[in-house]
Amino acid sequence: MPGASDMCCRHWGWSPKHGFMNREPSRPPPAAQARAAGRPRSDASRRAVLDAAYAILVEAGLSSFSVEAVASRAGVARTTIYRWWPTKGLLANESFLEAFRPQLAYGRTGSAAADFRALLCSLTQALSGPAGQVAASVIAQAQSDGETRRVFLEGFSEPLRQDSTALLRTGVERGEFRADLDVARVLDAAIGAVYLRLLLGQTLDPAWVTQLAGTILEGCYARHGLGTGRPRI
Amino acid sequence: MPGASDMCCRHWGWSPKHGFMNREPSRPPPAAQARAAGRPRSDASRRAVLDAAYAILVEAGLSSFSVEAVASRAGVARTTIYRWWPTKGLLANESFLEAFRPQLAYGRTGSAAADFRALLCSLTQALSGPAGQVAASVIAQAQSDGETRRVFLEGFSEPLRQDSTALLRTGVERGEFRADLDVARVLDAAIGAVYLRLLLGQTLDPAWVTQLAGTILEGCYARHGLGTGRPRI
Repeated sequence: MPGASDMCCRHWGWSPKHGFMNREPSRPPPAAQARAAGRPRSDASRRAVLDAAYAILVEAGLSSFSVEAVASRAGVARTTIYRWWPTKGLLANESFLEAFRPQLAYGRTGSAAADFRALLCSLTQALSGPAGQVAASVIAQAQSDGETRRVFLEGFSEPLRQDSTALLRTGVERGEFRADLDVARVLDAAIGAVYLRLLLGQTLDPAWVTQLAGTILEGCYARHGLGTGRPRI
Repeated sequence: MPGASDMCCRHWGWSPKHGFMNREPSRPPPAAQARAAGRPRSDASRRAVLDAAYAILVEAGLSSFSVEAVASRAGVARTTIYRWWPTKGLLANESFLEAFRPQLAYGRTGSAAADFRALLCSLTQALSGPAGQVAASVIAQAQSDGETRRVFLEGFSEPLRQDSTALLRTGVERGEFRADLDVARVLDAAIGAVYLRLLLGQTLDPAWVTQLAGTILEGCYARHGLGTGRPRI
């Protein structure tokens, strides 16, 4: 399906108009805002800490991540870090999200299928780089550390799922997708495929994700007549 | 879909007639056979080592697994273990496979859709127990250990994929599934969904896997006429 492949690739690097990444990424998350209340946060120090944290995550993964190493690399005191991020898990998560969110670039067009393809392409593209190694190390760490799992789910996995759910529901409301589409299971399949491939060390390339999106979408379309009912988009 | 749910549950606990689990599980794998050539392996000691290894994997995961601990628990010398299993990764993998394979119970009926549902139900059921915790710890360890990843892929993931591929291709050959079905991507989606749910600590229950199988199968069926074309099975 060369047409679908082209479409997918065109979406990579899109400027976002709506969606996950467009939630004012420069604004600290609510927990950080609450901690910073009454004490103006030094933007330069905060940036240095987050950059140092992300660099260490990329180089060594979450299992080797420590507040000491981040403090040393950022040139700040450990107490400064702990004042803003009570646990190393919260610091690692925020540094990951700040680096990852701007890479998730997808929008809303007149076609929910095209938007879903763009979402999967964007997620796969982002995870094929250093952020993917960080995400893999976070999932690995989460197997023996409930706090890491909770932070990953609440800070990353669930917000992305909410956006993706809204995207697929738009397709159902428009009659593009089946009225009885099980949106949650579609997302389990699509996102699960991407993560398993990442965790097994297999290549996350545009051809693969285009095939994956096409295969999953085949079960989503509303059937209005004879044949496959596959829309020509 | 109560009918589909019942069908799924009926398959759990099936006696196998064909498939992954029916490959003479009591026979050592080729590598072990080659190592044992010319030296009769003591079945009792081998069983004791594999049982001890699996118990340690279930209790503590792969990151805490050591040949010393297995030797102590099984009451054998470390050199005995190293004679049969040159690395702790090979020992862990064999003990996992010996415990896991008999839990994968699915067969071949007249319906590839029913067989696919049974396969997913069986895999999910097996991973919802202690074997799932072991598999999760193996995948976690594989993120920083290429040998563990290789052994998991070659010893477990790929053989299961080969069987599953044959199962889906039977459906294509019979005209039950679309002629242009991308079998590899269907398996990426189905198996990826199961593993991601396991790794995120979410419940692997029969209702969930029945919904997952139904959602994925919706994109597999051949469309021969009006409507959804979903077979009534």
